[in-house]
Amino acid sequence: MTGIGILGAAGRMGKAIIAVAAEKGVAVAGGVDRGEAIVGPYADAAALARASAVLIDFSVPAALAGHLDAAVAAGTPILIGTTGLGSEDHARIDRAAASVAVLQSANTSLGVNLLASLVEQAAARLGPDWDIEVVEMHHRHKVDAPSGTALLLGAAAAKGRGVALDAVASTDRNGRRTEGAIGFASLRGGSVAGDHMVVLAGEGERIELGHRAESRAIFARGAVAAAEWLIGRPAGRYTMNDVLGL
Amino acid sequence: MTGIGILGAAGRMGKAIIAVAAEKGVAVAGGVDRGEAIVGPYADAAALARASAVLIDFSVPAALAGHLDAAVAAGTPILIGTTGLGSEDHARIDRAAASVAVLQSANTSLGVNLLASLVEQAAARLGPDWDIEVVEMHHRHKVDAPSGTALLLGAAAAKGRGVALDAVASTDRNGRRTEGAIGFASLRGGSVAGDHMVVLAGEGERIELGHRAESRAIFARGAVAAAEWLIGRPAGRYTMNDVLGL
Amino acid sequence: MTGIGILGAAGRMGKAIIAVAAEKGVAVAGGVDRGEAIVGPYADAAALARASAVLIDFSVPAALAGHLDAAVAAGTPILIGTTGLGSEDHARIDRAAASVAVLQSANTSLGVNLLASLVEQAAARLGPDWDIEVVEMHHRHKVDAPSGTALLLGAAAAKGRGVALDAVASTDRNGRRTEGAIGFASLRGGSVAGDHMVVLAGEGERIELGHRAESRAIFARGAVAAAEWLIGRPAGRYTMNDVLGL
Amino acid sequence: MTGIGILGAAGRMGKAIIAVAAEKGVAVAGGVDRGEAIVGPYADAAALARASAVLIDFSVPAALAGHLDAAVAAGTPILIGTTGLGSEDHARIDRAAASVAVLQSANTSLGVNLLASLVEQAAARLGPDWDIEVVEMHHRHKVDAPSGTALLLGAAAAKGRGVALDAVASTDRNGRRTEGAIGFASLRGGSVAGDHMVVLAGEGERIELGHRAESRAIFARGAVAAAEWLIGRPAGRYTMNDVLGL
Repeated sequence: MTGIGILGAAGRMGKAIIAVAAEKGVAVAGGVDRGEAIVGPYADAAALARASAVLIDFSVPAALAGHLDAAVAAGTPILIGTTGLGSEDHARIDRAAASVAVLQSANTSLGVNLLASLVEQAAARLGPDWDIEVVEMHHRHKVDAPSGTALLLGAAAAKGRGVALDAVASTDRNGRRTEGAIGFASLRGGSVAGDHMVVLAGEGERIELGHRAESRAIFARGAVAAAEWLIGRPAGRYTMNDVLGL
Repeated sequence: MTGIGILGAAGRMGKAIIAVAAEKGVAVAGGVDRGEAIVGPYADAAALARASAVLIDFSVPAALAGHLDAAVAAGTPILIGTTGLGSEDHARIDRAAASVAVLQSANTSLGVNLLASLVEQAAARLGPDWDIEVVEMHHRHKVDAPSGTALLLGAAAAKGRGVALDAVASTDRNGRRTEGAIGFASLRGGSVAGDHMVVLAGEGERIELGHRAESRAIFARGAVAAAEWLIGRPAGRYTMNDVLGL
Repeated sequence: MTGIGILGAAGRMGKAIIAVAAEKGVAVAGGVDRGEAIVGPYADAAALARASAVLIDFSVPAALAGHLDAAVAAGTPILIGTTGLGSEDHARIDRAAASVAVLQSANTSLGVNLLASLVEQAAARLGPDWDIEVVEMHHRHKVDAPSGTALLLGAAAAKGRGVALDAVASTDRNGRRTEGAIGFASLRGGSVAGDHMVVLAGEGERIELGHRAESRAIFARGAVAAAEWLIGRPAGRYTMNDVLGL
Repeated sequence: MTGIGILGAAGRMGKAIIAVAAEKGVAVAGGVDRGEAIVGPYADAAALARASAVLIDFSVPAALAGHLDAAVAAGTPILIGTTGLGSEDHARIDRAAASVAVLQSANTSLGVNLLASLVEQAAARLGPDWDIEVVEMHHRHKVDAPSGTALLLGAAAAKGRGVALDAVASTDRNGRRTEGAIGFASLRGGSVAGDHMVVLAGEGERIELGHRAESRAIFARGAVAAAEWLIGRPAGRYTMNDVLGL
């Protein structure tokens, strides 16, 4: 029971995790994708869970219940990076977290999670006299705007200020700024992996808190680091902030 | 008939022009704002136009027709810095330019006008495989978005690419990028005098061409220099590029 | 005993504080400079201290002892913004802080002090695998490089990492990076009031934490806010972090 | 005699060129490295030159003379991307350029070369009242500082201003700015592929002209585009500006 077990091992993130583990010399116990053995001899989540020290799941919401059951049955901690989860999925994760350690995050980059924590503090300390804007740039093919990470950073700012993001988010500026708004601006072009900046603008000064990703490998790198951190943790629901000691 | 006549003399730009003229030792014939004499004895544009060697107008679009009539009636050249002009306003300016010298510019700073020339070249040389986005930030009280300067830079990019800005401008991004679009994003907050950046994003690389204004004095400085250049010019429509010899 | 008493009232910062207080509607009890009454009837620090709810001192190190004595005698809290202090000065401040509330800071901008706190945390959380660099830009006439604020930010980064800045600071890069270094780069030009950015660069991603000052008024604004915060505080030595609740 | 012949085919850039050619469907005639056939049957530059429509050389200065002789003997145009060339190397290139088309460039990225042209113009138009600084960031392992590209951009600025870079370059700022200097600042950290920015700072405003590389593939991409452009050109010495039509 050593090494990482990868669920969704044939997907884009699954492959990136295999590459990062190889690069960092982290053992991979096996990799499964839709009932097929991708790495190692295991063809299903239950067998992989028994053979692994920790599981990483970047698959689809429909597979989540089975993956959590496998983790709980084997007593193996699990990191959930699958996106598009609903409230039922989160209830399932909470139940599993009563038996094993579970870390769920929509963004497993260490840098982005640290930045969100800094943004929350800055918004809390500077107070409502400082206006907050979020600007991001991604490659030309990205389908959504603002990016999920921009919304995550905006939510951190809103939390710091003690308001709900939904109540203050402004994604479509055509005229004057609304007082108290958190504005979002999205640039698209070329092959940019993902740049984000939160601007806090006061009278006569600005604070700019930004993150630049060179490639999507950073999400795999953060997931592997978090999975290693998860090994041996007591049952409970964790976030990337716990990994970062925030 | 010597000195500068200032229309919109009680506004932010009007005051900055008075300050710059004082600092540079340039004579001010008078200043009018909404029918009131702000500097000197003249309470209306017609009287001020007759008393001035050149007019500078930083007021509101609604006042433009009257200001152009005053300039034409007195035969006095006029610099128009008022923003938010529509196609009817531009038609009026063209008609006035048949009688007197008119310089209209949404941005009277030397740096911005140089930047526009660089943006046009970059767009022309790099071609349509490079995506173009314009991002700008201004103080929280600015009423329009995108800024006039952002549109000026976007128009330069469109010209370089051989397309009309109206056909490709995208000011409201909520989903995927349209191929060939020139996107605009506007940040507002604090007391920022005006930052602009044009991003040209290709496969694996980006060019960023930006301008930062520390205060609105740069527009007043450029406007006063341009107004002095305008004195004695033949009838016609001019731009800042003519002043700068670009 | 209401209002701010300004020591060094005829200096650059003294004047800026008078302007900010006027702009914000904060009462000024008086202002003294080298034995002369600049604002109000008081010509010496002792009288001013008795008439003020709080003192702000932006003068010279030689005047510090007298100013602290005046504060202690009157039981009036005091903010010290004077720079160039030595270890004797700091010992004097410590002694005065046994009797009254004293806040001493080489940089009274709220934004810079908040940024330093964020930098310290980022350096602590990300650990030694992330390289740290500090870059700053100031106007062409600045005599020192790196700026005092760059060193303050570098010291915050070093503290977060658990090292002494002196042991790792690299201000002169002509070849390869030394492992563990905190690098400093200084740009000079034009009339830039002061831009700072701390870059934390990891494998595949970067965090950029920056501050832009539009004018030196931000130091006066922060000093006035901190002085108001200081009124009614118990004896002790405070920093800008206390004002910010950090 | 079709396809690209690659000299230094086993090196980092050689491999990148093979990958880009494959990605773009550009034929590769062969690749040689230190007397070994890396791609195709040719084991020396002379044979490869005879079999290729154009040569690309990213090897070492010591190999340059032989490579130029091979190109001249076969009448094959050659692109030289090898860095670290001395004045004797340049004299050799000039002699070869009397017989065949030779393009030599220390940086084959289209974006960087375009930027250099914009920097030259900006420096020329704005004149000596605007201060010029160059700042760059690269990965932690880079051995030289400032980067070759920073020096290329600085040389463009110096040319625009009508001075020699050697006479004005300032790479080590520890105190006050020298009037007329072109300053260089180098940041190092993480895995940054290469960011460059030229700042032109005037009274109250700044122009920032920057380039960001996501990976070194942009140099290979530009080299392949330039090599294709070189096929069929008359003898002479060319630069990337010729490829860009600048």
